[in-house]
Amino acid sequence: MISAELYHVPLSPFCRKVRLSLAEKKVEVKLIEERYWEKDPDFLRRNPAGKVPVLKLDGHALAESAAICEYLEELYPEPALMPSDPLTRHEVRRLVMWFDDKFHHEVTSKLLYERVNKKITGQGFPNSTNVMAGLRAIKFHLDYMGWLLDHRRWLAGDRMTLADFAAAAHLSSLDYISDVDWDRAPGVKDWYAKIKSRPAFRSILMDQVPGFPPPAHYADLDF
Amino acid sequence: MISAELYHVPLSPFCRKVRLSLAEKKVEVKLIEERYWEKDPDFLRRNPAGKVPVLKLDGHALAESAAICEYLEELYPEPALMPSDPLTRHEVRRLVMWFDDKFHHEVTSKLLYERVNKKITGQGFPNSTNVMAGLRAIKFHLDYMGWLLDHRRWLAGDRMTLADFAAAAHLSSLDYISDVDWDRAPGVKDWYAKIKSRPAFRSILMDQVPGFPPPAHYADLDF
Repeated sequence: MISAELYHVPLSPFCRKVRLSLAEKKVEVKLIEERYWEKDPDFLRRNPAGKVPVLKLDGHALAESAAICEYLEELYPEPALMPSDPLTRHEVRRLVMWFDDKFHHEVTSKLLYERVNKKITGQGFPNSTNVMAGLRAIKFHLDYMGWLLDHRRWLAGDRMTLADFAAAAHLSSLDYISDVDWDRAPGVKDWYAKIKSRPAFRSILMDQVPGFPPPAHYADLDF
Repeated sequence: MISAELYHVPLSPFCRKVRLSLAEKKVEVKLIEERYWEKDPDFLRRNPAGKVPVLKLDGHALAESAAICEYLEELYPEPALMPSDPLTRHEVRRLVMWFDDKFHHEVTSKLLYERVNKKITGQGFPNSTNVMAGLRAIKFHLDYMGWLLDHRRWLAGDRMTLADFAAAAHLSSLDYISDVDWDRAPGVKDWYAKIKSRPAFRSILMDQVPGFPPPAHYADLDF
């Protein structure tokens, strides 16, 4: 059992992806909430980019969620969250970027950041144009995921990988604010039910953000 | 000698990073300019994200520049552009994200996209607020690179890696429009002179974008 500290915020999909990797690999981690927008000098020293997550492990402060997950994969190869053949590894990395870049830009930043982050960080009210754009874009993304899952058991192939964790991290944060229409994509719902029932997901289902109580279905495995 | 096709645009830093990796590994590539903003259905089939670069290699269409570079690294390990120890590999990946995410957002999109991409894609004139913000932000980034290079021969450590290619790809595109103040950071200038003189850089120094002639120093190895 290795001991680690993760500077995070509960609904950040980037932090959730790292939490899922750590839990799946049974690395015990102490979670430390970091109000990164207050730019504490100690925190900026750990990560000059000023973002969460930052993982402290064995005296090193590691930043950038995708780079952290690859590092954990190299340090603790079992259970594997990356496939072994280069082509499927590329597909995992392509999909991680799909969610962390495209989905984040088109959906997460337009819904979660407008509805929750703005209030928490004192930036005022949601911009309704952004919220509408996010609600339109998530439909396209659910359809794309549904199409992938028509052809594959998991998003990148036959086995669960970091691509599934990246996607589940974003969707779980949006599910916390009831912004995922599960009825639209039954294949995606089945996939999410599988991943949601893993022990690694438990801590994420117990998250509570003051002022934003989750809906009843959020932690329900039979949602 | 392997044969490949890269769908690209000349000044895209993401495409340039892939071109540098391919050239360093001596993979012969046919460059195909793709007007990705016109959303050609054939191109969207290759990459539903609608972005360049897309690399066609051995019948596969590969998207996302960082994922492509990792794939090339696994397929053609020599010469190595990734170190072997996990901690330095993390540092390479952290820095690749630093440039492709943070630098891209704060600098490249504010300078290159305002001054060049907007005109090429018919979106009108540069927004001067964005340009001013980009010119302010690049100073911070040059200082950060200078600080790294005070401590290391290359950005991530003792050897040239994908982190140097990511950084050089962004800086070379900005140098094409004279937006890099090399006098500000002599250490960065020395580093760029080293990387610019590599044979892998030649094709990038010969790029010409109609309507945007490069300054004389752009292709000069003694700039």
